Amino acid sequence: MLEKSRIVIENIKPIINCGAYAVKRVVNEIVAVNADIFGDGHDIIQASIFYKHEKERSWNETRMHPTVNDGWSGSFKVENQGAYEYYIQGWEDHGLNWRHGTIKKIEDGQQVNSELLEGAELLKPLLKKCSKSEAEFIKSAIASFTEPEKYEEAVNICLDSHLEAIFLKYPIKAVPYESQKIPVYVDREKARFSTWYEFFPRSSSSQEGRHGTFKDCEKILPRIAEMGFDVLYFPPVHPIGEVNRKGKNNSTTAAPDDVGSPWGIGSQKGGHKDLHPQLGNIKEFKSLVQKAKELDIEIAMDFALQAAPDHPYVKEHPKWFKWRPDGSIQYAENPPKKYQDILPIYFESEEWKKMWTEFRDIVLYWIEEAGINIFRVDNPHTKPFYFWGWLIAEVKKKHPDTLFLSEAFTRPKIMEQLAKQGFTQSYTYFTWRNHKHEIIDYVNELTNTDLKEYFRPNFWPNTPDINPFHLQGANESMYMIRYFLAATLSSNTGIYGPVYEFMISDAIPGKEEYHDSEKYQIRHWDWKAENKLMRVIARINQARKENSSLQQTNNIHFCEIHDDGMMAYYKYDEERQNNTLMVVSLDPHNSKQASVKVPRHELSLDFGQNIRVEDLITGNSYNWDQEWCFVELHPGMPFHLFKIHKN
Amino acid sequence: MLEKSRIVIENIKPIINCGAYAVKRVVNEIVAVNADIFGDGHDIIQASIFYKHEKERSWNETRMHPTVNDGWSGSFKVENQGAYEYYIQGWEDHGLNWRHGTIKKIEDGQQVNSELLEGAELLKPLLKKCSKSEAEFIKSAIASFTEPEKYEEAVNICLDSHLEAIFLKYPIKAVPYESQKIPVYVDREKARFSTWYEFFPRSSSSQEGRHGTFKDCEKILPRIAEMGFDVLYFPPVHPIGEVNRKGKNNSTTAAPDDVGSPWGIGSQKGGHKDLHPQLGNIKEFKSLVQKAKELDIEIAMDFALQAAPDHPYVKEHPKWFKWRPDGSIQYAENPPKKYQDILPIYFESEEWKKMWTEFRDIVLYWIEEAGINIFRVDNPHTKPFYFWGWLIAEVKKKHPDTLFLSEAFTRPKIMEQLAKQGFTQSYTYFTWRNHKHEIIDYVNELTNTDLKEYFRPNFWPNTPDINPFHLQGANESMYMIRYFLAATLSSNTGIYGPVYEFMISDAIPGKEEYHDSEKYQIRHWDWKAENKLMRVIARINQARKENSSLQQTNNIHFCEIHDDGMMAYYKYDEERQNNTLMVVSLDPHNSKQASVKVPRHELSLDFGQNIRVEDLITGNSYNWDQEWCFVELHPGMPFHLFKIHKN
Repeated sequence: MLEKSRIVIENIKPIINCGAYAVKRVVNEIVAVNADIFGDGHDIIQASIFYKHEKERSWNETRMHPTVNDGWSGSFKVENQGAYEYYIQGWEDHGLNWRHGTIKKIEDGQQVNSELLEGAELLKPLLKKCSKSEAEFIKSAIASFTEPEKYEEAVNICLDSHLEAIFLKYPIKAVPYESQKIPVYVDREKARFSTWYEFFPRSSSSQEGRHGTFKDCEKILPRIAEMGFDVLYFPPVHPIGEVNRKGKNNSTTAAPDDVGSPWGIGSQKGGHKDLHPQLGNIKEFKSLVQKAKELDIEIAMDFALQAAPDHPYVKEHPKWFKWRPDGSIQYAENPPKKYQDILPIYFESEEWKKMWTEFRDIVLYWIEEAGINIFRVDNPHTKPFYFWGWLIAEVKKKHPDTLFLSEAFTRPKIMEQLAKQGFTQSYTYFTWRNHKHEIIDYVNELTNTDLKEYFRPNFWPNTPDINPFHLQGANESMYMIRYFLAATLSSNTGIYGPVYEFMISDAIPGKEEYHDSEKYQIRHWDWKAENKLMRVIARINQARKENSSLQQTNNIHFCEIHDDGMMAYYKYDEERQNNTLMVVSLDPHNSKQASVKVPRHELSLDFGQNIRVEDLITGNSYNWDQEWCFVELHPGMPFHLFKIHKN
Repeated sequence: MLEKSRIVIENIKPIINCGAYAVKRVVNEIVAVNADIFGDGHDIIQASIFYKHEKERSWNETRMHPTVNDGWSGSFKVENQGAYEYYIQGWEDHGLNWRHGTIKKIEDGQQVNSELLEGAELLKPLLKKCSKSEAEFIKSAIASFTEPEKYEEAVNICLDSHLEAIFLKYPIKAVPYESQKIPVYVDREKARFSTWYEFFPRSSSSQEGRHGTFKDCEKILPRIAEMGFDVLYFPPVHPIGEVNRKGKNNSTTAAPDDVGSPWGIGSQKGGHKDLHPQLGNIKEFKSLVQKAKELDIEIAMDFALQAAPDHPYVKEHPKWFKWRPDGSIQYAENPPKKYQDILPIYFESEEWKKMWTEFRDIVLYWIEEAGINIFRVDNPHTKPFYFWGWLIAEVKKKHPDTLFLSEAFTRPKIMEQLAKQGFTQSYTYFTWRNHKHEIIDYVNELTNTDLKEYFRPNFWPNTPDINPFHLQGANESMYMIRYFLAATLSSNTGIYGPVYEFMISDAIPGKEEYHDSEKYQIRHWDWKAENKLMRVIARINQARKENSSLQQTNNIHFCEIHDDGMMAYYKYDEERQNNTLMVVSLDPHNSKQASVKVPRHELSLDFGQNIRVEDLITGNSYNWDQEWCFVELHPGMPFHLFKIHKN
């Protein structure tokens, strides 16, 4: 290792797995960079961040400044979608070092004639780089430095901050050292701020007993828009397998009129690039996507890599499945359980490259053919991690607008790994975090550890697979609390409706599963019905749209509130001067009172300066002139969503 | 990134800077490896550590086992000096996975005929690898698996743990993944356990006013050996510069008879490869090194890369120094301070490669010519870090016995970086850590963070440069306390004598510097004198030699003791079943009493099982049958060094 540099750069942050995976940001976010940077000896060192978008030809440089304990920090803004890289350069700064030492000697009363000659040598090469007016200053400096009679003037120039400015602007970089390059991936803003609604399009019909269609879905769009959702996610809309189809309530024998699970993809009617004929054709699907767009709603598709036994893949690509010595095909299983309606993809297949390409092409097809830009990926943790890393990178290279939500409710390291491989957003354990301290611990883990750099949580109170115990038989207050928490703790949130807003939680006893689940049958809903919960959801979503502090997750800070059944937290957006404060009761049955500690220091409130808090749900305002402020919440409206106004 | 494997391996420990620097061990130590390892889906995975000494041709494999949260752990022993590498391999284990799933199905009452056929396919290739007796078992398994009549027998073989043993011994590794290779460097044991004594050889004369010689030093060796030291470190023994030589007490004007600082290296009498003529010649030096070895003492040399103005380098290699525009040579300076007796090496020189080679050759010269194996490096932090990384690696490649002690009393990140670059041991902040909580914090930082993997502390209560305030005018008790702490907290320790054992602390007022420092003048000592402190030091060192638990640093654990002026800690060596318990008062003036909490759980004591603690300094023994045991310490013997005997 022959390396002449005298600079060490280490402990760079942010970085994921030594640079193996990209740090994530959305457009116009800041990348705040920290590192330990030092040289040998006492000389003055300096450092810069160099960063570049993949389409830029040359690197942008921004200077870093020292903090404590040999730490340096700096930052840059990522203004464009796509891949960035950054690295740090450190150097012995001959110009600043010379000036610093010379001034010390002048102040000590030493003669600095020899130092002045050195200074002149350092300045000469800068003449080639600097502006005209700077050149004049430099020339006069050189003249006085090299002329013994002008000693007095030379000393004054040394002390002049103009000289420091010159050396800062045109650093003389000796023995520079460059760190490794660190990848950053920048998404569009929706990666960070999105409000999801999921429903089964086959349940969209206004007429009981009729299979819903894309056309029916169009009629429901205004309802979704009014509630304030901007992503509408559909379970798979592909042809459903007919062999070994599941019946109602997941029974292994299907009645002739059973519609099967949309996740049992593929039949003689087609596979992953086809639409279930009963929903409609591609033209109707595209019309729906278009209509949704007009209401600022993006349709998200499900990407579930598995096949029904009658999926066309089985005949076309037999090697993509595992065949057993008795000549049968391998069904999905988690011994002793068997899932005979599903064939897993055999990723250890010798044809893996061909297979990967086809799967990528499915995604590209829906992007390019139907204008889809968001995919919710089903069970990504049962497919190889490196496959996802490759697929997501391939798709985003062509379509950087594409977002992928990882539906992996599994062990922490696996969920984190999928995010590292490139998933834009991830489902979380929020669904099961109900108590104050476990919510705080979990949110702090997501927002105050390395996770904040690559794992974007999406908080869902329920999904078609999870009818959590605390929502089973719960009252309206509980539904309000859970949506409020999801939508204000996390800037990405979603619900599975209309069971959510209709508060339908009929469960299979002892399980967190819906009875008569739409996964296996069509349900009929009154799509015209309205209720208080829907209006509350709409107002929460409206507040999210109007307050930039609610459009981020990592900006959350919990406030002290001395009641284990109440929580308070605030979010700030320094750039846009938007601050919100949330106070919520976790008790859906009783009134709760407590005092909240106002984050006066964090809000930079002067002594005597007060705030007015404006409840964005009720419209009420309160003047808060104490550090600890009293709050009372009732089950009928178990939270405050305050906008903070500084008086 | 096309990677077919289904395995992820990350968060590997130990590793330094993503593998840029080697983890450190001494011979026969264990490298305990931990990592997060997981695959997609539910299949059973397995993992191994592969490791190899640089001189071995093939890799050794040792299996890992799962812990919690997708963590896996394993370990290997490093038995030879030199460079090792290790990496982790993980795989989907087709054999174990097949058996696991099949047993689940059997237990569920399912027919497994098809599974048995799969099992037979998996077993066939193992016949090529296994022993004769194993082959018989495998053949009978295959026969029953493929013969429907033998279904009963086949099921029994499935359940037989022999089959599991076969699959564990001959793993069927599908889609294996291998981590990066991680370097480990293994030193001889002295890297971890050493007891240093420093004195100025020119002060070795028994006759006042006469310049000491290597011959005089030989006479002092038995004294050093009796005190129990095994490294004798000398300040530089090279010719001392005569130009701008420093006078007594660091005065800038030297009297004609002033001897100068040994760190002002080089004169017309020679440079770094020469000996100061007044000390003796190379033959005499070698004789001293040999005599020391006979007493189990290694002589450590000082390696100080700087030159007096009359060093031969200045004429031979003018480009290795910095010349100023006025034609003068650059002296060492830290503006406004100037050190005109010293020229720093100009490491930015264009001749840097030639220079690096010469400096390496100095070290090689003393190793090969005089049999020196330990170097204390002076101010390494004022020379480039990468230079040290290169030099140490180059020297150790040829002479792996060589140890380097980093004399860098500077900022934490810099001290750590030098250790990363390869320094075997490092001076520490112990010299200034006096209070209970700062000592505990510091030792925990050294032994419970990543530092333990690469930074080997050497605790010195004093050095020629540091006469710490708490030793100035201190009593005998304080000197006992400080040596006891240094020698029992850290397995590497050292003192600068004979000022230490003679308790001479005459200081320059307001500074932590010795008055009449031996750095600038010869001192006359009564090398025959003996005292209690010396006997105490000798007994502490004897205890260190006889108790393996004291020969390590990272095995320390602090015990509760409810007095801020008292500390208790124990060290264990599980392998050799050696446990020691230290109790020390930090008050050199008053008696102290408190109860110590015996680490009964950590000592694996059964209920009712007691211990006897044997004080290795006084010889007294106590039976301790309580969890909290009373201790009283007096300034006359302010500590216990207990060996723990389990009754």
